[in-house]
Amino acid sequence: MPLDPKRTVAELKELRSLTGDENGAQRVAWTDTWLRAREWFAKKLAELPVEHHYDAAGNNWASLAGESKKSLILGGHLDSVPNGGWLDGALNVVAALEVFRRFASEFNGRPPVTVRLVDWADEEGARFGRSLLGSSAFAATHSVPADRVRTDRDGITMEDALRRCGIEMGRFTEAEKERQNAAAYLELHIEQGPVLEQLGLPLGVVLGTKGVERHSVTFHGQEAHSGSTPMNARRDALAAAAKLALEIRNIARKHPDAVCTVGSLKTFPGIVTAVVGRCEATLDQRDLDARILAQMFQEAQDASRRFADEEKCTVEWSRIWSIEPVPFHPALLDLCEQAVREVSGTAHRMPSGPLHDAAEVSRAGIPAVMMFVQSLGGISHNKIEDTREEHLEMSVVAFDRLASKTVDWILRS
Amino acid sequence: MPLDPKRTVAELKELRSLTGDENGAQRVAWTDTWLRAREWFAKKLAELPVEHHYDAAGNNWASLAGESKKSLILGGHLDSVPNGGWLDGALNVVAALEVFRRFASEFNGRPPVTVRLVDWADEEGARFGRSLLGSSAFAATHSVPADRVRTDRDGITMEDALRRCGIEMGRFTEAEKERQNAAAYLELHIEQGPVLEQLGLPLGVVLGTKGVERHSVTFHGQEAHSGSTPMNARRDALAAAAKLALEIRNIARKHPDAVCTVGSLKTFPGIVTAVVGRCEATLDQRDLDARILAQMFQEAQDASRRFADEEKCTVEWSRIWSIEPVPFHPALLDLCEQAVREVSGTAHRMPSGPLHDAAEVSRAGIPAVMMFVQSLGGISHNKIEDTREEHLEMSVVAFDRLASKTVDWILRS
Repeated sequence: MPLDPKRTVAELKELRSLTGDENGAQRVAWTDTWLRAREWFAKKLAELPVEHHYDAAGNNWASLAGESKKSLILGGHLDSVPNGGWLDGALNVVAALEVFRRFASEFNGRPPVTVRLVDWADEEGARFGRSLLGSSAFAATHSVPADRVRTDRDGITMEDALRRCGIEMGRFTEAEKERQNAAAYLELHIEQGPVLEQLGLPLGVVLGTKGVERHSVTFHGQEAHSGSTPMNARRDALAAAAKLALEIRNIARKHPDAVCTVGSLKTFPGIVTAVVGRCEATLDQRDLDARILAQMFQEAQDASRRFADEEKCTVEWSRIWSIEPVPFHPALLDLCEQAVREVSGTAHRMPSGPLHDAAEVSRAGIPAVMMFVQSLGGISHNKIEDTREEHLEMSVVAFDRLASKTVDWILRS
Repeated sequence: MPLDPKRTVAELKELRSLTGDENGAQRVAWTDTWLRAREWFAKKLAELPVEHHYDAAGNNWASLAGESKKSLILGGHLDSVPNGGWLDGALNVVAALEVFRRFASEFNGRPPVTVRLVDWADEEGARFGRSLLGSSAFAATHSVPADRVRTDRDGITMEDALRRCGIEMGRFTEAEKERQNAAAYLELHIEQGPVLEQLGLPLGVVLGTKGVERHSVTFHGQEAHSGSTPMNARRDALAAAAKLALEIRNIARKHPDAVCTVGSLKTFPGIVTAVVGRCEATLDQRDLDARILAQMFQEAQDASRRFADEEKCTVEWSRIWSIEPVPFHPALLDLCEQAVREVSGTAHRMPSGPLHDAAEVSRAGIPAVMMFVQSLGGISHNKIEDTREEHLEMSVVAFDRLASKTVDWILRS
């Protein structure tokens, strides 16, 4: 079968009607709807001459054996956030399926290198707050002891939820053997941001995933009566936090691609008649350059102490999570640029703010690269997430070209 | 009996041990602990030659009939917030009892004017969120239709809770008849703020209660991925709200006694990985001058619109509650100043930020004034609320002098 990008769009719509509702996609990992999406996908795979199995972490692997055991991996994830979009994760899987069909057809079922397709388990971490679960097992960066006791909002542990789907977390390390012979990894994804749309470009070359410093910042002041406490006698924890929420924007704007966000701010006691005694903020800082990320983190800490002093408050920092920047492979970046340019005329290189499974694969030492396709309005994780159909089709064509170029690169390497 | 200020302190401690626990005072209106406090107080009254009854709104009235039917009212409230302080409200009632004893003794049971003592019902509004309940019935400023269906956190309606204490809300208007012959109202209270302590003064003359503008201010921006949304593409509702939280301080500082407070700020979706799409803040503004209050309200609205524009957000205002400033009676202010000066040497005039029952009495057209006694650390509504014992004793002496001066003033009027 020749590549048919329109079929990818049609299959994505099929998946949407099977696993979405009026609030959006509901393919949350380890739920019945997600399992239904995987069954649907298994039926598609069954039409192809491929070996197909789930690894010990629940990742779904399909392999088209090639002349060489060296393998090219095309990856994505069928799981979504609750009330999510139709494309996030699913585009990668369904587009990879189309590329898979083309390889199977073009080389009479036996391409020059082995081509594999992986549907990662639980990229989003929507139910248990642990994203990149399946790919971290693959990359041996998992954290099973901490993760198995995580609970969803009904109190069900991750361990029990996975067991119900046939996965024993104690055997996660067995997923590492899927790394054998892996020579390159490619992932197509919607941008989930507004950059390509603003540039008027359908496709982009992803430089890597930004490193993240994610912290909880708590200011302690003095709760006081809002009526009886003069302005000059206050120790207002919200004032210190408000200054920080504004200053982190100046810190980010010194660098072209950096972002800093206060996404949550909580006030205590949080009542209309009391000066805020305690204010808890979250800070998320990202950049592709580790030095810039470290500098921004230091500047935010320094600023928070200055504001605490100004407001006669104290401040405490506590790390929620962090990850180093993961730059993609230079040779694959060049191939991705060629593919994007051939299809859309211009190739824009950009970092990815959101994390992706490709980062875990890359951390495992496997050359990886990602390609972005424009998101309308930059909106994702929402039922209105969308991409123009002609852009989706272009992305399938460009991703297919990238796959072919990468097969040649693996043969040359 | 001559005035015995030490007895007031001893009786306050007695009440504390009877109705408090390790977390503070628990005399929340319409609870068993509050009823126990009232029983304790009724026993004290029973030792005096007074008529004593509860009015239709649950206010407790004790009257020492005088030569004239014109009456001087001394008021306070035994109810507290949960985990409250030992003095807030109770000082007024117990000090008034002592003044009452002195009047009963000095004039052989028949003072020149009738002297009344009132323990207002539910000043704090701690259980149902409606403060000044009893005094608003007295003043005919109550809001029974809206209040009767208020519920506590267990879902019990105010109407049912009051009925359990023998009060029918449908009969609230009958409490207005207690206004008959009322010639003046005096209330002693802890400051609940840090001003007197900072000035090194034990006592203060209260000019009136500040007017309050209390609003909910909601900024609407665009929820967006914190990793993929460049800084210049954001519509961050928190940024607009943070600017307002800082600007209201500048607005307040233009005026010597004004206060403006953002006490609660809520972020939505309020997660570490999303730019804030909606931010709900509360704003509380107070001043004794109605023109200043109106100006501050206008300035805050203008500022919020400017910040919304700057952040490409929109803003909505919704009034939570407001009350006009209530200045106390000029002649009584002078008497209060004399009494304070005689006892402590200096008389500082200051507005009250917190509301008090005296404001409702004043709105009913009855001349009223309040006297403040220093609060340690300016802290109230907390188990650590405290005042030096010598200051408590001075406050009883000064309040007693004010009562005598006010009797003379009533006779002259």
